[in-house]
Amino acid sequence: MSGNRFGTLFQYHSWGESHGEAIGCVVDGVPPGISLVAEDIQHYLDSRSPGRSRHTTQRRESDHVEILSGVFSGKTTGTPISLMIRNEDARSKDYDGIRDKFRPGHADYTYHAKYGHRDYRGGGRASARETAMRVAAGAIARKILETQIDPHILIRGAVIQIGNLACSREKWDWGEILKNDFYCPDGTMIRKWETFLDEKRTSGSSAGAIVEVQATGIPAGLGAPVYDKLDADIAKALMSINAAKGVEIGDGFDCVALGGEENADEITRDDNGKPLFLSNHAGGILGGISSGQDIIARVAFKPTSSVLTPRQTLDTEGNETTVVTKGRHDPCVGIRGMPVAEAMLACVLADHWLRHKAQCL
Amino acid sequence: MSGNRFGTLFQYHSWGESHGEAIGCVVDGVPPGISLVAEDIQHYLDSRSPGRSRHTTQRRESDHVEILSGVFSGKTTGTPISLMIRNEDARSKDYDGIRDKFRPGHADYTYHAKYGHRDYRGGGRASARETAMRVAAGAIARKILETQIDPHILIRGAVIQIGNLACSREKWDWGEILKNDFYCPDGTMIRKWETFLDEKRTSGSSAGAIVEVQATGIPAGLGAPVYDKLDADIAKALMSINAAKGVEIGDGFDCVALGGEENADEITRDDNGKPLFLSNHAGGILGGISSGQDIIARVAFKPTSSVLTPRQTLDTEGNETTVVTKGRHDPCVGIRGMPVAEAMLACVLADHWLRHKAQCL
Amino acid sequence: MSGNRFGTLFQYHSWGESHGEAIGCVVDGVPPGISLVAEDIQHYLDSRSPGRSRHTTQRRESDHVEILSGVFSGKTTGTPISLMIRNEDARSKDYDGIRDKFRPGHADYTYHAKYGHRDYRGGGRASARETAMRVAAGAIARKILETQIDPHILIRGAVIQIGNLACSREKWDWGEILKNDFYCPDGTMIRKWETFLDEKRTSGSSAGAIVEVQATGIPAGLGAPVYDKLDADIAKALMSINAAKGVEIGDGFDCVALGGEENADEITRDDNGKPLFLSNHAGGILGGISSGQDIIARVAFKPTSSVLTPRQTLDTEGNETTVVTKGRHDPCVGIRGMPVAEAMLACVLADHWLRHKAQCL
Amino acid sequence: MSGNRFGTLFQYHSWGESHGEAIGCVVDGVPPGISLVAEDIQHYLDSRSPGRSRHTTQRRESDHVEILSGVFSGKTTGTPISLMIRNEDARSKDYDGIRDKFRPGHADYTYHAKYGHRDYRGGGRASARETAMRVAAGAIARKILETQIDPHILIRGAVIQIGNLACSREKWDWGEILKNDFYCPDGTMIRKWETFLDEKRTSGSSAGAIVEVQATGIPAGLGAPVYDKLDADIAKALMSINAAKGVEIGDGFDCVALGGEENADEITRDDNGKPLFLSNHAGGILGGISSGQDIIARVAFKPTSSVLTPRQTLDTEGNETTVVTKGRHDPCVGIRGMPVAEAMLACVLADHWLRHKAQCL
Repeated sequence: MSGNRFGTLFQYHSWGESHGEAIGCVVDGVPPGISLVAEDIQHYLDSRSPGRSRHTTQRRESDHVEILSGVFSGKTTGTPISLMIRNEDARSKDYDGIRDKFRPGHADYTYHAKYGHRDYRGGGRASARETAMRVAAGAIARKILETQIDPHILIRGAVIQIGNLACSREKWDWGEILKNDFYCPDGTMIRKWETFLDEKRTSGSSAGAIVEVQATGIPAGLGAPVYDKLDADIAKALMSINAAKGVEIGDGFDCVALGGEENADEITRDDNGKPLFLSNHAGGILGGISSGQDIIARVAFKPTSSVLTPRQTLDTEGNETTVVTKGRHDPCVGIRGMPVAEAMLACVLADHWLRHKAQCL
Repeated sequence: MSGNRFGTLFQYHSWGESHGEAIGCVVDGVPPGISLVAEDIQHYLDSRSPGRSRHTTQRRESDHVEILSGVFSGKTTGTPISLMIRNEDARSKDYDGIRDKFRPGHADYTYHAKYGHRDYRGGGRASARETAMRVAAGAIARKILETQIDPHILIRGAVIQIGNLACSREKWDWGEILKNDFYCPDGTMIRKWETFLDEKRTSGSSAGAIVEVQATGIPAGLGAPVYDKLDADIAKALMSINAAKGVEIGDGFDCVALGGEENADEITRDDNGKPLFLSNHAGGILGGISSGQDIIARVAFKPTSSVLTPRQTLDTEGNETTVVTKGRHDPCVGIRGMPVAEAMLACVLADHWLRHKAQCL
Repeated sequence: MSGNRFGTLFQYHSWGESHGEAIGCVVDGVPPGISLVAEDIQHYLDSRSPGRSRHTTQRRESDHVEILSGVFSGKTTGTPISLMIRNEDARSKDYDGIRDKFRPGHADYTYHAKYGHRDYRGGGRASARETAMRVAAGAIARKILETQIDPHILIRGAVIQIGNLACSREKWDWGEILKNDFYCPDGTMIRKWETFLDEKRTSGSSAGAIVEVQATGIPAGLGAPVYDKLDADIAKALMSINAAKGVEIGDGFDCVALGGEENADEITRDDNGKPLFLSNHAGGILGGISSGQDIIARVAFKPTSSVLTPRQTLDTEGNETTVVTKGRHDPCVGIRGMPVAEAMLACVLADHWLRHKAQCL
Repeated sequence: MSGNRFGTLFQYHSWGESHGEAIGCVVDGVPPGISLVAEDIQHYLDSRSPGRSRHTTQRRESDHVEILSGVFSGKTTGTPISLMIRNEDARSKDYDGIRDKFRPGHADYTYHAKYGHRDYRGGGRASARETAMRVAAGAIARKILETQIDPHILIRGAVIQIGNLACSREKWDWGEILKNDFYCPDGTMIRKWETFLDEKRTSGSSAGAIVEVQATGIPAGLGAPVYDKLDADIAKALMSINAAKGVEIGDGFDCVALGGEENADEITRDDNGKPLFLSNHAGGILGGISSGQDIIARVAFKPTSSVLTPRQTLDTEGNETTVVTKGRHDPCVGIRGMPVAEAMLACVLADHWLRHKAQCL
């Protein structure tokens, strides 16, 4: 109830502060008998790892994950899976300067207002470091989907816009994603983003980004009507990522300008007599329930609030002051947000899969 | 767990189909001693009532709400408040034509895929009729906020775009909202929207809309870190409304193109020494917790999927066919979505208020 | 969270006061496609109906249940099933005398302390009348178990002790249960109980009772380790019934005096090679998970607190006074508790069945 | 939902197997600003520590608890508190003999039936070792109650019966409890229990026990009506402890033989004009809500199922075999259950305190 837990049947409870002893999570509700080793999780953690390029934070963590429970002889036992990553490279000294100041755009002021007392080091609980646990839980969520539904399920994402520089949907190539520092699917955009972000970084500024995630191979029927619609749960999951400010499903805001007859995806049959949609404006979800089409969502990340430009603010005593955020930060936090968004989508789908099994299978 | 319940401490469980006996909800967790009469709820129901104008559905329901429990001598007792609205004007015959066909853009196919068996009349549980219970619960949520925080709290909304016709933020006048059929805050836009929607309706098409909701007077400190961020819960609440396809907080997708130093709202002191933000790009939420500024969110509604143009689809046997959606529908469902969006925001805030009281007060 | 909801996947949210408009509940999580008509529920309601004999309350309600949603063409749709019973025979006048007095042994004082404000008529929300909804929900729970596991599952109970007069386990005859006014399985005890209760009633006193419930045909594997053990959930479910003060599983308190080698049920094979337990001290549950044996639980009901003997108490102003509880009451509330205990057991089992399906099937 | 989490607002999620890397839990919902150091928790862990005497298991663990998050500068921050205890003395070899056999009275068979696959070493997740986390969480629960309600709140327990040897209530002396190896409140009973247990141990048998726990200083008003009654939640909490088979509140099963006029506790005023109950048959709870009297509950523990007498059983292949449980076990597991029962009561009360604050304060 205090907001550190995600999911209903597939669920995880995350803990830890950026500069504390460790971060971790307890993943629960996992079906027994699923093969799982630390490497399955480490693989995805490495893909989000800070220090990947000069465009992401220079904090270097090996992010070595330990499985402390819930797995025996290489298989899940159905009991809670406790994951932990020790914090190794925590230079708390960097944060002494902002100990008593509320950094604009950060959670400093609101945590202070809510809790009175906070671990200011590196943002404490509000740090993007917490997202490592989302990625770890997401790796287990994928395992569930692959084992119980279809080994070919794909849950993947891309950064499709940085600042005002958007990729071309026509040039989308999934093969490009892991070849560049930006998870960019449009090869023609990479040079432009490099130049743009170098400029941002050297000027002490930062940039926002839009991430798109897609799930392919999800059967029709996942989701729930009314309040826990599949898209509502995806919206919550994506909006809960640090720095997220907007979420769309399918055509999203663009569908406002369409007529109903354009927007509603017509249905025919494929060669096997199965339903075939003629378009996917809906992003694979109708009435809160998956249609079997690709599930498509986008999330907008604001520009990193940690900037080197001095900004006006208050200290914890209420005095006016200015603040410059040192420390090691991502000039574009949205890039590291991509694997996190993928993971959150996987978690929502694994949860709704178990919910669907419980009620309808 | 089956998706018909909203909230954690302030919560309600909604039930009922469009053309069944009745719709209703059980509102629970309400503090005792709050004055409440049916009229407090009826007031908000009337504001969303179908039949308000030619731009919304022609189904006419008095939507007369009964309070069946939880209130004694005009005050809440702390026990569940059961609300019920009898369905009066249910012309199920209108739906015989679509009984065995999946209307494109509707939940027909996905409900069929999930449940096998469904109440096809008027969309059954997937009907926008369910939103009456959201508005009813929202009326009680407002009562909680007004009684326990501040009687001057305002939770209000506006339709700011229909089709591709957007209001001007400069011409925003809250006084306009209730003077026109569209909850439009920009008086210069009304004639244009009338023309546009008449055209849509007569051509058997429909239009999308964007709704903005704002909460004024909410103190700093509401919300939770990580997964149940206040903005994540607002995103879920708004995305769960029928036909919603996108949600934004504060600047939303527009903040992607800003630099971090522009987007992060600086802080100074007001005349009473209290924190005063110099801008509100964040929409009143930082790190998932309210900052005391106005909370601002937007939701995009797709064009109504019920259109008079014949559309290609399948029947429940898997045969190809076409469908035309008769029945009484809103050419722009987003208009009726406005009071619903207001209500959902009120529900999220009341819930987080009680959560905050439990842990931090 | 406010205590009016039961269950996790199979769940229901109950509402209503003894002398309000109606009582009801919303049953949710029910699998689609299960045949259900009001009579399926009415059957069990009738079996608990007040007015059955002079040994239970003289309040006469037809307890006519209406299904308001969630069922279409005689089958569940997977959406919430709203049940309602109008209160017909509500003589609130009977309660004017206790409006401002705290009846000893009743919830009057504690509701006052908690909520400040309460519906005093007939105990309001604390009335045993609420248990009708447990029985109604239990009827649906049975349907789930019978449809999804085995049509021959039996969930049944008996009153095995009234006052200090206990049945003989050797004379247990399930066939006797419905032939007498007490759900008594031991025909030799009936006359004694009649005499005993007549004496209690005429002297303005009341008596306690012990109820035993059994579930036969439940497969091994239902339940959960640690906190939501099957027996822990049964204990909660039974202890939540009005007037319950003790709960046992299997041998319960009696196993304290056994040695471990006597108490631990040995296992061999039956003729089909399946596990066969040589005894059932455990009551069908080991480590919180069902073993496939009969599940056996007992619940102790205190003597009805509504007695005609004047008792010392305070009024709501804090003045000393005495109170005599008029109204129509059961001299032995435990008798009516039997069908309620059966229903609660059914609800726990249906819930854990769905939970098991979600994680392990 | 998979049963490893306890509580609603004050809650903890426990993880770990008896012979895995570590055990731990995440305690969440804790109010910020409460002083907390590891020693506060270690104190209670030491009191339950195995190896205390020859009457409890000979497994020796230092049970050194680490606080990994949620505390900063000696105070809780309102974020999750992660606790961990490394498993040091795990002799898994001891368990090779029972790897493929279902020990009677143990969870071996039911875990196998549920999960197919299990960590058999030392009972894995079903081991009483897990109860260390209950005691740890209970220590934090006490802190909440002491800080937010009254520093003099007492939550304490005693072993009141071992085998068929019951303490005398007249000789109850809280001062005796920590002076003997049994948490026995009756000094005259200690020698008898020693003799009895020595006999049990040397004969390879074991004994059951009854534990009573009491909470003093809890105000009226905690709890909830209907399903989450305070006594129902206590019943679940106590019944969830390993080896528990029965639970009572107040007079429990004994109240069955009382008349209503004896059992219902009369009320008068104390010298300060406050309500004073003339007896406490109810155990401090009426209608599911605390009355301000001492809260009293008892729990029956079965005799330890690990016995040295050969017992008939099956192996995982379904063959008949016999088993003798070696390893290091408590001849009377109920003794170690006492601090666990205290802790569970503390957790229930802290949870209901926060729930009460949320709705009614």
